[in-house]
Amino acid sequence: MAGTVTVPGASVPSTPLLKDELDIVIPTIRNLDFLEMWRPFFQPYHLIIVQDGDPTKTIKVPEGFDYELYNRNDINRILGPKASCISFKDSACRCFGYMVSKKKYIYTIDDDCFVAKDPSGKDINALEQHIKNLLSPSTPFFFNTLYDPYREGADFVRGYPFSLREGAHTAVSHGLWLNIPDYDAPTQLVKPKERNERYVDAVMTIPKGTLFPMCGMNLAFDRNLIGPAMYFGLMGDGQPIGRYDDMWAGWCVKVICDHLSLGVKTGLPYIWHSKASNPFVNLKKEYKGIFWQEDIIPFFQNVTIPKECDTVQKCYIYLSGQVKEKLGKIDPYFVKLADAMVTWIEAWDELNPTAAAAENGKAK
Amino acid sequence: MAGTVTVPGASVPSTPLLKDELDIVIPTIRNLDFLEMWRPFFQPYHLIIVQDGDPTKTIKVPEGFDYELYNRNDINRILGPKASCISFKDSACRCFGYMVSKKKYIYTIDDDCFVAKDPSGKDINALEQHIKNLLSPSTPFFFNTLYDPYREGADFVRGYPFSLREGAHTAVSHGLWLNIPDYDAPTQLVKPKERNERYVDAVMTIPKGTLFPMCGMNLAFDRNLIGPAMYFGLMGDGQPIGRYDDMWAGWCVKVICDHLSLGVKTGLPYIWHSKASNPFVNLKKEYKGIFWQEDIIPFFQNVTIPKECDTVQKCYIYLSGQVKEKLGKIDPYFVKLADAMVTWIEAWDELNPTAAAAENGKAK
Repeated sequence: MAGTVTVPGASVPSTPLLKDELDIVIPTIRNLDFLEMWRPFFQPYHLIIVQDGDPTKTIKVPEGFDYELYNRNDINRILGPKASCISFKDSACRCFGYMVSKKKYIYTIDDDCFVAKDPSGKDINALEQHIKNLLSPSTPFFFNTLYDPYREGADFVRGYPFSLREGAHTAVSHGLWLNIPDYDAPTQLVKPKERNERYVDAVMTIPKGTLFPMCGMNLAFDRNLIGPAMYFGLMGDGQPIGRYDDMWAGWCVKVICDHLSLGVKTGLPYIWHSKASNPFVNLKKEYKGIFWQEDIIPFFQNVTIPKECDTVQKCYIYLSGQVKEKLGKIDPYFVKLADAMVTWIEAWDELNPTAAAAENGKAK
Repeated sequence: MAGTVTVPGASVPSTPLLKDELDIVIPTIRNLDFLEMWRPFFQPYHLIIVQDGDPTKTIKVPEGFDYELYNRNDINRILGPKASCISFKDSACRCFGYMVSKKKYIYTIDDDCFVAKDPSGKDINALEQHIKNLLSPSTPFFFNTLYDPYREGADFVRGYPFSLREGAHTAVSHGLWLNIPDYDAPTQLVKPKERNERYVDAVMTIPKGTLFPMCGMNLAFDRNLIGPAMYFGLMGDGQPIGRYDDMWAGWCVKVICDHLSLGVKTGLPYIWHSKASNPFVNLKKEYKGIFWQEDIIPFFQNVTIPKECDTVQKCYIYLSGQVKEKLGKIDPYFVKLADAMVTWIEAWDELNPTAAAAENGKAK
């Protein structure tokens, strides 16, 4: 861990929000030059870097950042046989970082994402907005037409029930992307030149009972509230699909949040997504997912978690059983995935014994 | 009906959208000077003016507009005893205009709403945006994080099921307000100076299963798809509440749209709402509604319309029965309202015999 360095021209916020309560998780296979641009915003925070691919390769991290780095050898050493639940050669490996963190909040970002500008030309402090999103309540039970009612200059509109105005705890803050939109391979192929240039100045709660496509590129969450459900599945090396890691996590997270009356927000902040991945490679990774998701979505829309499941772990274990039973019929992959979901929870509880003990206490 | 007049400086669109298929409905008690500002946008369309209050008063309409005007005497003459379902001394009377229209689309606007400007300073053609909203599909079954996927420069994001990308027919387009937000009396009292200055450049579908507070100030809908459910209830003179007319319609409309797989959009376009109504008067009108809505919302969240109800009329009649049975316990007002809902449908079918015959044919 290197000491902090003062960089001319970069202004580090004097009182960074939640400095000691948030880790930034970055999956990567290359030198982290992209951090230079984020220095004013990220330098006060601790980074967890999850190195994917060849563990003998050295990843360079710009000076002045406080970080820990895990490669595949580290993951295998720390988790032993349970390391099988962590994907290899896919950015899904990032969820290992969620597990080893000891902080309350996680922010995860891709290494091809840069600082975006708001319509006035000012650099957007994405992390600050995510923290605001997480620290203010969500409104999953009724729609507010003026968007986030807790934002300055806004409120609940006429007809919004007063009993619902306290809202729910926010578990997830899903940020968006300017420039390269998060399209699937077919859409990339059809619209290679489309860029997202529209800055929508809104944060909203995704209503209870509604699923959404959660992208892992620019995502923050409350580890204490929803961490054990943030498993990015089995993707990449040795697996029949890729690029569904964050989607899988999003579907599981949303049904569990709905069950536990937790909120999920989407909208601000934007990051600037620099580079579209290769649509031909993506198509190869995605095509089974494109087919399977036609069954997966109705599965998640219809699954009902029993009342007895009063912790994230219990909900997740219940979901894994349903995945095996209902989706296992589609392909043996889902049986393997269901087993990995159980392994993930076991590994999570092993690395987070206090939380696990609290869970067990609650279970009794 | 006066002929059209050319006004210097006002540019009437050369090919107004849906000119022969849309009526603009305006409830009012005063001269319609506000139309001057709307001239470039509204003049090509037919107006239906519903005069509230004293029928002997003359309402002046600026020259050049094509309109028909109904006062209380007209309503009583046309509907006979069924006129009891149309509110008096409350803007809820506007729904009479929906009933007498013979067009496919309705746009309704309050007479204290003016043309707003977009962030570039350009006048917003609210009606044009509503028509765009109504003519493009909705996406009630899954959330798209980049908002309206049919808008230029946008699309469905990765993870959005392909089978759902055709979307649903759009029945309602709910527009918003800059300047004076649509707050209830308690919020008005607490935040008398709050103004909505935030232009959110988005249109979104309100997901299936989610209720919202529908405001009648700036609202468009497809009469053929949802017209018979756009009843604004019993408000104002002789009734225990006011200012819940549009809310009531919105709750009924949303559960019926969900049942019939129709879409409801909210967001753009904005109008400029000029004047806050008196919060003390509003409190008197609203206070029972504020109390009752705590039961009304769960009622609408839990009501299940039977499969056999395959037309808006049948859904609405079913709802009226449920209102009588479930909400009638709260206050005798709801029994009266349930009866008025039935009267409204009878009057609708009387004035729209072709549609009613088609309904009956379908029912057999």
